[in-house]
Amino acid sequence: MSRALLNQKTSSRRARRRDGRRIGILRAAARIFRDRGFAESGMRDIAEAADLSPANLYHYFSGKDEILYFCQDRSLDLMLNALARSRRGSDGLAGRLRQVLRAHAQAVLDEVEGGAAHLAVDALPDPLRRKIVAKRDRYERGLRRLVIEGGRRGEFVDCDAAVTTRAMLGAINWSATWYRPGGEWSASAVADMIASYLVRGLTAPTDAERIRER
Amino acid sequence: MSRALLNQKTSSRRARRRDGRRIGILRAAARIFRDRGFAESGMRDIAEAADLSPANLYHYFSGKDEILYFCQDRSLDLMLNALARSRRGSDGLAGRLRQVLRAHAQAVLDEVEGGAAHLAVDALPDPLRRKIVAKRDRYERGLRRLVIEGGRRGEFVDCDAAVTTRAMLGAINWSATWYRPGGEWSASAVADMIASYLVRGLTAPTDAERIRER
Repeated sequence: MSRALLNQKTSSRRARRRDGRRIGILRAAARIFRDRGFAESGMRDIAEAADLSPANLYHYFSGKDEILYFCQDRSLDLMLNALARSRRGSDGLAGRLRQVLRAHAQAVLDEVEGGAAHLAVDALPDPLRRKIVAKRDRYERGLRRLVIEGGRRGEFVDCDAAVTTRAMLGAINWSATWYRPGGEWSASAVADMIASYLVRGLTAPTDAERIRER
Repeated sequence: MSRALLNQKTSSRRARRRDGRRIGILRAAARIFRDRGFAESGMRDIAEAADLSPANLYHYFSGKDEILYFCQDRSLDLMLNALARSRRGSDGLAGRLRQVLRAHAQAVLDEVEGGAAHLAVDALPDPLRRKIVAKRDRYERGLRRLVIEGGRRGEFVDCDAAVTTRAMLGAINWSATWYRPGGEWSASAVADMIASYLVRGLTAPTDAERIRER
């Protein structure tokens, strides 16, 4: 094996190890943020929970702002990836929308990116906050386009896409405030239930249902 | 007119005037809470927005905690009243649930009780916070009972009532974070749209829809 290739392998292994370590830290940080709230959590608490010295923690993250940013940025990447996949899909809009909402809920409920960290956008200092808000807006626009497209094709009921999209975002984001890992349902089961419920609300009721609802 | 009756009339007029003044203050406070956040709002700002001297404001409310408590308590009263009315109703569960969700959304979106104030439960000092949380839990239990009852009667799809109820609460509560009065839709139009969407998600899809959704 050439020396260059060997170096490359070593450095990519090192990068993987570093990433793995960062994920471990995020998991510990998410737990602390959830238990104490972001404002009350210190780097010292996070280091302790991640079984690191504070100095070692600073080797991976410059501060808790960077940890929070990393959590939110990862969540949004997962959500935007699901959106990109849904655009390439060929099946009905309901199925595609359900996949996206499930990925979103999963990101919110996940032990690593999820929980309090997902919602604490306002806790970020300004340049980081602006980046997250822009990314979040991109996601919302993409979701709204799916709702509009489903309406155009007659797969979804006629509704205000902006209001309905925000109702969806709310139902999912709010789950960070009540879901606790280790309870009756896994994160993935809850994500499934919420996504199915939210998609059902867009599919047109039959006449019989319309009468029953009066 | 007897002196006693006259006194009673005067004092009830005075109480009405006092209540009217308090509502005016709540409206001003809600605006300030929305613009600056609860933590950043002071009694002096609220007094100025309500066109009162700070001393006069303290005549109506002992502090901003009491204002916040009053906002949340009023919201919850409106929601619990809607729930009580729905229990006396005789029409389908879908219609009754829609009425309750609409009242809830209306309370959240209202200029007086609504907005940031509705969500800032954690900002309350402990004895007040506990009262609000207990009342909120009562509302959630009532809503969950409607979902369970609709499932039992076959009017709603088979679903986990606790998760679905919380998805509803989320969709509605979250609207406080994005709704701004004076925009394209009135609070009551948005409340209607969200309530209808959330109820539709509980009504069973037909076979044709089930196939289309795959």
